[in-house]
Amino acid sequence: MTRHCFAARALLPAGWARNVRIAIDAAGGFADVAADTAGPRPGDEVLPGPVLPGMASLHSHAFQRAMAGMAETRGPGSDDFWSWRELMYRFVARLTPEAAFAIARHLYVEMLRNGYTAVAEFHYVHRRPDGTAYAAPAELLLRHLAAAREAGIAITLLPVLYRWSDFGARPLQPRQARFGNDPAAILAMVEAARRAAAGDADVRVGVAPHSLRAVDAASLRELVAGLEAIDASAPIHIHVAEQTKEVDDSVAASGSRPVEWLLSNQPVDRRWCLVHATHMTADETAALARSGAVAGLCPSTEANLGDGIFPLPDYRAAGGRWGIGGDSHVSRDPAEELRLLEYGQRLALRRRNLVAGGAVGSPGSDAVGTTLWTEAAAGGAQALGRPMGALAAGLRADLVELDPGAADLHAREDDALANALVFSGTPGLVRNVMVGGRWVVRERRHRLDDEGGEDAYRQALRMLLA
Amino acid sequence: MTRHCFAARALLPAGWARNVRIAIDAAGGFADVAADTAGPRPGDEVLPGPVLPGMASLHSHAFQRAMAGMAETRGPGSDDFWSWRELMYRFVARLTPEAAFAIARHLYVEMLRNGYTAVAEFHYVHRRPDGTAYAAPAELLLRHLAAAREAGIAITLLPVLYRWSDFGARPLQPRQARFGNDPAAILAMVEAARRAAAGDADVRVGVAPHSLRAVDAASLRELVAGLEAIDASAPIHIHVAEQTKEVDDSVAASGSRPVEWLLSNQPVDRRWCLVHATHMTADETAALARSGAVAGLCPSTEANLGDGIFPLPDYRAAGGRWGIGGDSHVSRDPAEELRLLEYGQRLALRRRNLVAGGAVGSPGSDAVGTTLWTEAAAGGAQALGRPMGALAAGLRADLVELDPGAADLHAREDDALANALVFSGTPGLVRNVMVGGRWVVRERRHRLDDEGGEDAYRQALRMLLA
Repeated sequence: MTRHCFAARALLPAGWARNVRIAIDAAGGFADVAADTAGPRPGDEVLPGPVLPGMASLHSHAFQRAMAGMAETRGPGSDDFWSWRELMYRFVARLTPEAAFAIARHLYVEMLRNGYTAVAEFHYVHRRPDGTAYAAPAELLLRHLAAAREAGIAITLLPVLYRWSDFGARPLQPRQARFGNDPAAILAMVEAARRAAAGDADVRVGVAPHSLRAVDAASLRELVAGLEAIDASAPIHIHVAEQTKEVDDSVAASGSRPVEWLLSNQPVDRRWCLVHATHMTADETAALARSGAVAGLCPSTEANLGDGIFPLPDYRAAGGRWGIGGDSHVSRDPAEELRLLEYGQRLALRRRNLVAGGAVGSPGSDAVGTTLWTEAAAGGAQALGRPMGALAAGLRADLVELDPGAADLHAREDDALANALVFSGTPGLVRNVMVGGRWVVRERRHRLDDEGGEDAYRQALRMLLA
Repeated sequence: MTRHCFAARALLPAGWARNVRIAIDAAGGFADVAADTAGPRPGDEVLPGPVLPGMASLHSHAFQRAMAGMAETRGPGSDDFWSWRELMYRFVARLTPEAAFAIARHLYVEMLRNGYTAVAEFHYVHRRPDGTAYAAPAELLLRHLAAAREAGIAITLLPVLYRWSDFGARPLQPRQARFGNDPAAILAMVEAARRAAAGDADVRVGVAPHSLRAVDAASLRELVAGLEAIDASAPIHIHVAEQTKEVDDSVAASGSRPVEWLLSNQPVDRRWCLVHATHMTADETAALARSGAVAGLCPSTEANLGDGIFPLPDYRAAGGRWGIGGDSHVSRDPAEELRLLEYGQRLALRRRNLVAGGAVGSPGSDAVGTTLWTEAAAGGAQALGRPMGALAAGLRADLVELDPGAADLHAREDDALANALVFSGTPGLVRNVMVGGRWVVRERRHRLDDEGGEDAYRQALRMLLA
């Protein structure tokens, strides 16, 4: 049975609209979205606050949520991405399936509260601490599926192929023993996850070759071909050029920079998401944009790790698609990610209002908040391989309603609402969140708030931080 | 009568301590702060959450709070600081005394909730829209004093001398008519504000020559000398090198860069706060550090305006003092300002954990969160000319207690608590806030929450945004 919501104002693909009547079918999709209607009809659910499409987080390592803030102490030697990774390895050594589930469920509820409605889980911890497989090799991956279902967030599961410790097929280090698999093992996890998903419209399964450091060319070809045989349009994500050392090592190993190598040696297209495409030449930037792939930007994590700044204006000018990911989850708020993204550009270029207007295939908006939300939602949807990312017929019914009573939205309309959401710096503007036609956050409350979900998270923290 | 608080853990000048007993005298100062005590005594107020010193915001233009998020739309021509300023001018043209009060009171309550306990109000709107003086020339300035008192935040009032529209003593433009005054008029405002403060320990008065653009050398000398005659240690704040255009114009006008000129031509010492000392040479950086002045850093505003990145590691290495300001109030959260400050450095330098260890005159901490909070609180206190910024006998009793029940503080101790506050990205960790011995935020509630203070703010928004 189709039901209706009526939004006083909503962000549609062509921009902000008034008196929007939204039909939601029994399967949890938008059946119709009509602007400038006469008003709500009897039985419509009226949403007085501004309504935006749900946001996808296109890159998540859920377990790192419990580490947020734990790596901010200066250590001996260099303080950089690589020393951060050492701490992450020590942390991962203690991770249990129960803790992974508790952290992910806690994280996904936090993300929902801030307006994320879907997540791509780039999951690389597969084995026991001693490197042996769990009885079910997809054990840890499937804990994230269970966590997403309890939280009510849509999920794209990306089991990670992590085969080598560095370029040149160097063997894994002992602390990487939990990550190691071959393409066949990852493809078996894909099959296991698809069986567990059982056709759920809010679950998708793809793969993630970890990086060109961790996967050789033959393994990458085997993984991609194997995935295509299972699902020809399934997503493929990869960490690509987060650190300049990684770029230098790639050049030393193959003569090519990572993005350059990937674009020359793989069928990079709309299925692909290149995460942390931070360090690119102008040629790589234009070529990545032309490929149709999504650039996966993780502003809070990339700032926390001191990665560098993605060339977003040039990439957008070339028609590039992009989205945002919470990655290490030092932020769980899409508005904060988008703000940090634009602020990084402003600081680097010493100009303002850089991500505005002229999105590919859309009239665009001069308002930065509107542009950022619209493009990130669309790019995130593409990266997740899930029909979402806009309020439009045929897509999953994911939406976010802001608090109509919030002072920071008072006396503002349309573009000014999106700008306030992204740039006024006020947390908690999101009031209600719907995923696939189901309300999962109502009046800022989630069902799990009353069911002790946080106790399990605290127990995990005590175990991991002890 | 002296009363006592007992903190299970508190950030003292030498670092985190346990079982801290804090004596507060009848005048609202810390009479004694003792670590490692046996425990609370009967009648002590027990604070189970981590306790930190209250933070000073050393730079505020309160009325700009109502503009937060309104300038994020791409306009014709260049989008930069100068086009942002055009919007601010249009906004200022509508400001009434009632709106200035309502906005400031709302802002100050928001700031208190996040752990600011004092603010330096760099106030430059003095006249009616037509350029005539109010019956009481300090009318608008004193509205900020009234707002601070109703909110319960300590304030340093800095009436701004804004005499010219640019280098070379160019006359004010019509839309700057509300700002213009001569040194004698500003000194009269200082006297008026001191009378209104009536010896209140939580009010201080200084001056702010707006910038070297807006004040000529003779006026600056006259203003500083006049202030010294009133109060020899009163604070002096100035906008100094926010934009490269400003630096270029200074060189064209005087042959010197702004910081260079100021250090050569003014008695810059501990009383001074150089706000936005963004663009400095290595020599200027070292010289400013040696002067004993405070560098006023406004990370969220400087990012929003695309100003650039302050050379903080070099400045700290030279012993420089610094603090943070909310400035245009796109953020009202000191934890977010400190996070943005460190993140800007990380992105620029591609390293992590840059502001850590070895603060001047302190043993320092390797934890970035502890270091950032400690140094910003001390530098802010100096800039405000108010005894605060640490939990130590003789200072005003300003403190912030974090929520002991927050998941993000769970299973963490000492430095990890400050790192979680600054870097885990969780809003709302502050539970209780004390200013000058009085609780102004209890269980996240402020007295004005129940007194309709927000109605006046909303009314101001409707008038200003119409």
